[in-house]
Amino acid sequence: MTSELDASLTRGTRPVVVQKYGGSSLANAELIHNVAQRIIHRKGDRVDVVVVVSAMGDSTDKLIALAHAVTKGSKPDAREMDTLKSTGELVSSTLMAMALKSHGYDAISLSGPQAGIKTDTVHGSARIADINTRRLRDELDQGRIVIVAGFQGLADSGDITTLGRGASDTTAVALAVATSAERCEIYTDVDGIYTTDPRLTSKARKLAEISFLEMLEMAVLGAKMNPRSIELGLVYDMPIYVASSFSDEPGTLIHGGEYTMEVRKAVTGIAVDRNVAKITVRGVIDRPGVAAGLLQPLADEGISVDVIVQNASSEGTTDFTFTVTGADVQRASDVVRAQTRVEFAEVVTGTDLAKVSIVGTGMENAPGYAARMFSTLAEAGINIDMITTSEIRITTLIKRDEIQNAVQALHDAFELEKTD
Amino acid sequence: MTSELDASLTRGTRPVVVQKYGGSSLANAELIHNVAQRIIHRKGDRVDVVVVVSAMGDSTDKLIALAHAVTKGSKPDAREMDTLKSTGELVSSTLMAMALKSHGYDAISLSGPQAGIKTDTVHGSARIADINTRRLRDELDQGRIVIVAGFQGLADSGDITTLGRGASDTTAVALAVATSAERCEIYTDVDGIYTTDPRLTSKARKLAEISFLEMLEMAVLGAKMNPRSIELGLVYDMPIYVASSFSDEPGTLIHGGEYTMEVRKAVTGIAVDRNVAKITVRGVIDRPGVAAGLLQPLADEGISVDVIVQNASSEGTTDFTFTVTGADVQRASDVVRAQTRVEFAEVVTGTDLAKVSIVGTGMENAPGYAARMFSTLAEAGINIDMITTSEIRITTLIKRDEIQNAVQALHDAFELEKTD
Repeated sequence: MTSELDASLTRGTRPVVVQKYGGSSLANAELIHNVAQRIIHRKGDRVDVVVVVSAMGDSTDKLIALAHAVTKGSKPDAREMDTLKSTGELVSSTLMAMALKSHGYDAISLSGPQAGIKTDTVHGSARIADINTRRLRDELDQGRIVIVAGFQGLADSGDITTLGRGASDTTAVALAVATSAERCEIYTDVDGIYTTDPRLTSKARKLAEISFLEMLEMAVLGAKMNPRSIELGLVYDMPIYVASSFSDEPGTLIHGGEYTMEVRKAVTGIAVDRNVAKITVRGVIDRPGVAAGLLQPLADEGISVDVIVQNASSEGTTDFTFTVTGADVQRASDVVRAQTRVEFAEVVTGTDLAKVSIVGTGMENAPGYAARMFSTLAEAGINIDMITTSEIRITTLIKRDEIQNAVQALHDAFELEKTD
Repeated sequence: MTSELDASLTRGTRPVVVQKYGGSSLANAELIHNVAQRIIHRKGDRVDVVVVVSAMGDSTDKLIALAHAVTKGSKPDAREMDTLKSTGELVSSTLMAMALKSHGYDAISLSGPQAGIKTDTVHGSARIADINTRRLRDELDQGRIVIVAGFQGLADSGDITTLGRGASDTTAVALAVATSAERCEIYTDVDGIYTTDPRLTSKARKLAEISFLEMLEMAVLGAKMNPRSIELGLVYDMPIYVASSFSDEPGTLIHGGEYTMEVRKAVTGIAVDRNVAKITVRGVIDRPGVAAGLLQPLADEGISVDVIVQNASSEGTTDFTFTVTGADVQRASDVVRAQTRVEFAEVVTGTDLAKVSIVGTGMENAPGYAARMFSTLAEAGINIDMITTSEIRITTLIKRDEIQNAVQALHDAFELEKTD
């Protein structure tokens, strides 16, 4: 009886920690070996460890290049592309399990399907529908470290799906939720979340913590994290810890609770998106359905539209402006010119633009922050092209070559280098 | 009614052809593109086409090298190794399906598990237990070309298995049997089966046909085909056509029926195995269990033993000789020396040996062939070290540097350059 009781106490009662390692942390055999030692160290904390891995280095890009080479320029089939890309994470997950076993630790790799990750059938950007953790739980109960291939799942059709670029983060947070983990740890080539891009100002400071909502704005605006994983953390209240896979420096905890580690500032950080273009459709005959008429053809082509501004109508016509990534600008303006539902005078494009945003939950209900942002930029001689705001974010569109000037001015104005 | 009848006539009633393409035929995007065109050409024959692919070029070797790098010399886990290696065929199968689709042909890739290939759980050298062709049949019935990842299957545990080196041939023959295909076509970098290795004599002649039993002997003795696939063809009477993937030259049909294309010769071919070593255990105390006592420890170490000769006993001791591949000789002699069940005087090794065999079903019940072989070698001044025979094969062990001399003499003596 006693030994059975002991077994039930040790089985399934250890806290679970989910770790995720990105591709640059796994780019070669030596790095995989190093990460294996970090995992072993974490396992020593008497926790059950689930590790989600991305594909090694640039291996996914190499597979994509091969696909384009065999199809000679025509678009590779989405279903085949998903199975092809999923092999990158199978390689890294099996190598990691081998590396751990060679150190004498019991480990096993699970593909997305083996880890019970069920998705819808949208190849290339599938969403997780459900996770059946039975096998994962069994392996953990046997004391094993479980390595899960990120980024992939299984559709009801029996076909492999992928969750979209960078979605191994999403796999990790979803598995943390499904296993009721203590937290999800994302190890990457940056060592945490900073007040702004440290390449833009030496005063950039690493944050000890940030809220999900703030991080969501930062992620969308160019910080190196997958926004879907932050959303998932927000919805299921799963704390996400972001830190370097190359050092033991403390990272940043993204969470939904009260700030506990530092006094809360109104503005938490400055996000930058460097590669923005705008398209202005001038002289649009203003009638109901204009916005849909212009934007639906873009959506049909898979072009993401970001900031959208429609000027007040004068004399029956209006100007309609939106932003896209620099890579999409030519294709987007072609689509707009080719559509026939909306009459317009001309299409004008503007490139070499950037978005600079201040983000912080403390700005809610505090209108003074917008004014201070705009006056700071004005004093620095920076012209603002467009403005858009959310509850906790104020975004300005400026010229790309003024990014550094803008960030330094704003970082100083909001005293982000100070912790209180 | 008529259209339903038409549909039932076209569905599932087209003959099925299974093709297999080896890794050297798929080594880069251009070659994959070329093979896609060959497949399309075959599809034009109003047949259902199932294509089995190996991994691209040396990609499997690269994966194995990575595994050894991360485990730093210790043996990589067999289960992880199987999932790792299986990715090579997933890559080539998805790329082939994409290439076909880019030519406007409907195609789909299926992994081993998706193709319903169930195996036992012996990782690294699993055997096919069963094939559920439901999905494969569905895809063919929809007019699709089905590309199956060779070399892999699914164990009952839900884990990926591989069938062993070169076993994509086995996948192809097994699928041909399971789909009641007309025949299995193996396309490779050789253009058929020759009377002997063409590098050894310019008189070597490509055979239009060869029997399963003869091919089995040739395959075991070094011809470039997987013996298990020949066995499978023999057991299920599935004709196997071997030809070049780079040309349209006619190849060789391996089959179990009567010879129809050429007059049957007594000796069909000469097989050569270049890398043989022998181990002689001298002064073995002769009592029951000697052979098992010497060979079981070798089997336990995974060392394959080939020709075995035990000399007649004299004065209570005997000499026991067997051959292994050159790569295994040091390990094998160590194992024999370390075993304690059999007492012996000394272990002597001989290296740089080769096996030269004549093969032909016509030799059954015709003892004159052995005598002609031995006298031919004697006239050529070649010393025979060991002899072993089967129903349709006579094998001699000779010095490696006498291979060419032996093959040319035998090819002439049995008039293999002539078709009648």
